[in-house]
Amino acid sequence: MTAHRLDQIAPFRVMLLMERAKRLEADGLRVVHFEVGEPDFETAAPIVAAGQRALGAGHTKYTQAMGIPALRERISAFYAETAGVTVAPDRVVVTAGASGALLLLAALLLDPDDEILLPDPGYPCNEAFVGVVNGVAHRVPVLAANGFQLTAADLLDAWGERTRGLLLGSPANPTGVVTPRSTLAELTALVQERRGVFLLDEIYQGLTYGEGEGAPGYRTGLEVAPDIFVLNSFSKYFGMTGWRLGWMVVPQECLDGVSRLAQNLFISPSSIAQHAALAAFDQDAMAIHEARRLRFAQRRDRLASGLRNLGLHIPVDPQGAFYLYVDVSKTGMDSETFCWRLIDEYQVAVTPGNDFGDHLAERYVRFAYTTGDEDIDLGIERIGRALTDWGMA
Amino acid sequence: MTAHRLDQIAPFRVMLLMERAKRLEADGLRVVHFEVGEPDFETAAPIVAAGQRALGAGHTKYTQAMGIPALRERISAFYAETAGVTVAPDRVVVTAGASGALLLLAALLLDPDDEILLPDPGYPCNEAFVGVVNGVAHRVPVLAANGFQLTAADLLDAWGERTRGLLLGSPANPTGVVTPRSTLAELTALVQERRGVFLLDEIYQGLTYGEGEGAPGYRTGLEVAPDIFVLNSFSKYFGMTGWRLGWMVVPQECLDGVSRLAQNLFISPSSIAQHAALAAFDQDAMAIHEARRLRFAQRRDRLASGLRNLGLHIPVDPQGAFYLYVDVSKTGMDSETFCWRLIDEYQVAVTPGNDFGDHLAERYVRFAYTTGDEDIDLGIERIGRALTDWGMA
Repeated sequence: MTAHRLDQIAPFRVMLLMERAKRLEADGLRVVHFEVGEPDFETAAPIVAAGQRALGAGHTKYTQAMGIPALRERISAFYAETAGVTVAPDRVVVTAGASGALLLLAALLLDPDDEILLPDPGYPCNEAFVGVVNGVAHRVPVLAANGFQLTAADLLDAWGERTRGLLLGSPANPTGVVTPRSTLAELTALVQERRGVFLLDEIYQGLTYGEGEGAPGYRTGLEVAPDIFVLNSFSKYFGMTGWRLGWMVVPQECLDGVSRLAQNLFISPSSIAQHAALAAFDQDAMAIHEARRLRFAQRRDRLASGLRNLGLHIPVDPQGAFYLYVDVSKTGMDSETFCWRLIDEYQVAVTPGNDFGDHLAERYVRFAYTTGDEDIDLGIERIGRALTDWGMA
Repeated sequence: MTAHRLDQIAPFRVMLLMERAKRLEADGLRVVHFEVGEPDFETAAPIVAAGQRALGAGHTKYTQAMGIPALRERISAFYAETAGVTVAPDRVVVTAGASGALLLLAALLLDPDDEILLPDPGYPCNEAFVGVVNGVAHRVPVLAANGFQLTAADLLDAWGERTRGLLLGSPANPTGVVTPRSTLAELTALVQERRGVFLLDEIYQGLTYGEGEGAPGYRTGLEVAPDIFVLNSFSKYFGMTGWRLGWMVVPQECLDGVSRLAQNLFISPSSIAQHAALAAFDQDAMAIHEARRLRFAQRRDRLASGLRNLGLHIPVDPQGAFYLYVDVSKTGMDSETFCWRLIDEYQVAVTPGNDFGDHLAERYVRFAYTTGDEDIDLGIERIGRALTDWGMA
């Protein structure tokens, strides 16, 4: 009785693992969580207080469909302050999470059978948004040998008659890699030559850990190519997952279409979340976000070196987000078997690669360092024990 | 550069009228607002307080994709308490507004070119949700002579090879009519005989003003047909528009598909809104909602009799929601001209019928009684003056 697109939408494997983890915890066992794509930190106190004030002030009504002007202006100012780029507030569209932005862009850009290129591995939900509007998600493998980067050659090989564009994440989920400025410039130019659309998912923007924050050589892809579509979120760097708020920057000529879609499909983003998010850019909140970024950086190093000491292979040093993409093929197990044995026998939860695509997915698992140092150490110890017990250490 | 579905999505006329109203207000003029489909009341204090407590307690993370169990259970209990129907908590899916529910159902049920029947006039956004998934919205005129009710004959005439089902609102926007129990039983039976899906939009549930609340002879369509899809919202009766929270009840066999779609397309509804909504069913909040309902009932009577005294024709007595659908053809103007002259010359904002469909839309305008008695009286006075000035009184 359901639509055919449902056949294309797999359940997340990690959901089953998380259920298992919950049952183990209900049995009194301690589970180490490396599976969760959500910061373990609560929303910073100044944002929470702003949310409470917004409620007290009666901000409980629908807002403008594209977001309250003050927030669109604040985001515009944020681009100016942090990246020195001019983004007119008009072009900033506040959305119900980055999920809301993905739906709006899919509806805006894709006719049935239109193709969009997606790196494999990548954020699993992207395909669902393409599928909802009956577009075709064309997965393009990104190779460890290329630093998990999509290359110009990959793009040209994959580009076909029905290709409408490319949706690229940087920093990327699940690999944690950041697209270098030169690559971004090359890819955006190639897409634009083909009159395609370039969608850059920057929802992990700000969570980079290279030489200072500027390691990739840019703060936002809008510095490199001002006319691309950029998606962003208050969930990750700003720690506002449960509030469901994001934004996107769209080219001027799309605003009318985006506005009509936003009115019809969402009415408005959450008024409370929007008013609270105004405080996310204040100095006190930014200091908290920045301190958390530094903790993520330390955790990345702690977890990566721990796993490498166990002999596990992390082929590409991740520079951002909060993920490690780890090759577990030396265990002789496919990644899904590895994940299930690890949760069942050692109570460590990680996500199998096949949640993120097909390409060599059976070799890889994703570790999220969204948990504290103590649990990171415990997890490493348990995995070490597992490898020994399994005769692989 | 945009997808073809954009051609089908008209901007709301009312948005342009609202902009005009804002400009007039900026010029210092007092505008009477009959155009807004949102209660003028702020969210009830106990719900606001619960939202503030939820924030203080750190409920700022993703929740389960289908909603927190406590809220699903609370909604299930609400059906039992108010309507005496058993709805398993599993079948209750919490969504990002009724908008979120409409998207999930469109994605779940409609393949490209599948047709869904919609009463004309009706909620304008429904067509956009159908269009996003490349379905076909087939508008079926509902006649004033039939009390703006869809009849069995209408349904049978409209049902075709590609028809998947019917989406019906009760209480209905913009007509305010409630589907009688016998009609609902007849229509649901006909749809189910044809193996179609029956989607009942109950987002104005609770806002009925007949002989006691039970005027239509049922509290929810689930009493009449337990296996239909029901959409609901915390926006209208519960006064939580800006929080963006709704729910739906779906047949058991669809839960797996809905769950996969909800995970992919939304991650989760707002954690804060969900925790606050738990308080919406408490006695103190319900007393506030009920008092507001009685005020809406009085406003309906005040506005309807005022307009009728001016000689304007309200062909069907509305029993619910907060709308009157008024025939302005005696003015000799089409409804859009009427609306623009009324806002420009007399600063009264109402919504033209062509925001809700095609059928005789040029005769009708929608009045929302989402404003206080003083403004209702002022609006009636101004319209009276307009009719006199235009030589129509």
